[in-house]
Amino acid sequence: MITVLTGGTGGAKFVWGLAQVIPPHDLTVIVNTGDDLTWWGLHVSPDLDSVMYALAGKLSRERGWGYDDDSFRCLERMKSLGAESWFQLGDLDLATHLLRTQLLASGKSLTEATAELCRAMNVKPRLLPMSDDPVQTIVSTPEGDLSFQEYFVRERWKPQVTGVRFHGADHAVTAKGVLQALIHSDVILIAPSNPITSVGPILAVPGVRDALRCTTAQVVAISPIVGGAAVTGPAAGMLKMSGLPVSAAGVAQAYRDFLHVLVADSQDESIRGEIESKGVRAMFTNTIMKSDQDKIELAKFALSTVAPEAVR
Amino acid sequence: MITVLTGGTGGAKFVWGLAQVIPPHDLTVIVNTGDDLTWWGLHVSPDLDSVMYALAGKLSRERGWGYDDDSFRCLERMKSLGAESWFQLGDLDLATHLLRTQLLASGKSLTEATAELCRAMNVKPRLLPMSDDPVQTIVSTPEGDLSFQEYFVRERWKPQVTGVRFHGADHAVTAKGVLQALIHSDVILIAPSNPITSVGPILAVPGVRDALRCTTAQVVAISPIVGGAAVTGPAAGMLKMSGLPVSAAGVAQAYRDFLHVLVADSQDESIRGEIESKGVRAMFTNTIMKSDQDKIELAKFALSTVAPEAVR
Repeated sequence: MITVLTGGTGGAKFVWGLAQVIPPHDLTVIVNTGDDLTWWGLHVSPDLDSVMYALAGKLSRERGWGYDDDSFRCLERMKSLGAESWFQLGDLDLATHLLRTQLLASGKSLTEATAELCRAMNVKPRLLPMSDDPVQTIVSTPEGDLSFQEYFVRERWKPQVTGVRFHGADHAVTAKGVLQALIHSDVILIAPSNPITSVGPILAVPGVRDALRCTTAQVVAISPIVGGAAVTGPAAGMLKMSGLPVSAAGVAQAYRDFLHVLVADSQDESIRGEIESKGVRAMFTNTIMKSDQDKIELAKFALSTVAPEAVR
Repeated sequence: MITVLTGGTGGAKFVWGLAQVIPPHDLTVIVNTGDDLTWWGLHVSPDLDSVMYALAGKLSRERGWGYDDDSFRCLERMKSLGAESWFQLGDLDLATHLLRTQLLASGKSLTEATAELCRAMNVKPRLLPMSDDPVQTIVSTPEGDLSFQEYFVRERWKPQVTGVRFHGADHAVTAKGVLQALIHSDVILIAPSNPITSVGPILAVPGVRDALRCTTAQVVAISPIVGGAAVTGPAAGMLKMSGLPVSAAGVAQAYRDFLHVLVADSQDESIRGEIESKGVRAMFTNTIMKSDQDKIELAKFALSTVAPEAVR
């Protein structure tokens, strides 16, 4: 049994790679929901969607988010009606949110709604939201607090970040299956997602960090930082704001209380000593996933560091 | 001041014609909401939408319902996800329902939500739902009860109709402005809509029929029945089921307690005597609206029967 903790973008690519190299039914994916938002009255779970679309082979390669070959006709008309339009939902993507919102309104949990969407999209690995309870990642800036999507999409992660907190996390309960997966897995992988705003919310749900510390599983993280910069998104600034080195060593430090192995990019072999000074083993390979083959190779490499027999 | 009572399809065309021949601000349109439904979790008001789209010049001519030049990509994906898909919402049309549902969820009434949608679409006449309260047209068939849209769209009005009732009408309150419009208008027009299932629900809201009986306005109806058959839809069978003649005379009879003039098609001049035996004056013209000019001519004719000075 292999479990991954992940956000969207980079994490979704990595999870796709993993699903190609291990039997999909052996894979549990625990996904950040701190970015979830209510948009046009619909419950949108951007990271769950990215992972689900990636696993269904439908994540737009062009955009890196949303549904493949989507159109934005409804959005254009919403704009012409004066509705907010900075968060873009495509016409095909909308179906996911309409169905999820209906399932939630009918009394299903986010976990159940996710399972139903996965079944409908023929996604075989088990996708779990970190929690069925609302947890909202709040980014503090000198101009005030923003929700993660306001910060990331509307403001294009330009504002200076002075703090990040996870509203509701203290009282959130892990979704059914999350702690079991962490405790009973052979390997736990932390996808190359933002340690602060993608993996951070998952770690903030009571019980998750404790389970990672006490599980007998080997815990392997893939660094989203390469050569002192984030592959995509605001991870570098987030690490800096958190007082962590902006490097693979900073990622190791963020996870040091439970991490066994950090997979970093070959470019960063020079900081092996700094990474290993955090008490984790450093392994190096190409971590930049441009092609499908890159994703598969990275997944294989990450698994091979602790469980070479798990790779098909 | 001129007020129209209307359903969708034929009524929407007629209302468009009216808006071309009188100042739009002098026009109040009271619309059937007995066909409203919750679809994919959204509040859909088919007749309000048809009238609004017609007035905005956006009603699909090709289909006679929905938004002009629409696409159905979200619908196709909903279908592939296993959602119900017999009621078709286009990608552009969806924006209306998303916005309406959000406005209602924020505490606005259907009247307020309609006004906001009309403002956003630059629709000048005043559109009023018959009521802000839910009224559901239920069609009884030998196989059981159906909502109007189940009967009309899903079953393509094939089932035998044994009865029609308006669930919730007894306790519904007319929307703000409805009774005022009926009492203070100079002319009230009943659009060429189904007397039983389009105009019937409006008449079933307490106070409407009384206001029509006691208003000083001249009341003119346009017959949706031409030569013993409905121009579109199930009006003929509905009249028959209600024990009314399937003819313009049946329409006159349905409205006889408040109607002054029935505008019927020139084809029906032979039944003038039968119509006038119901106590209403019969006037004849072409009532089949194929072109925009037809709609304008019919509106002018209907007004000219009682208020020739009202026509621009």
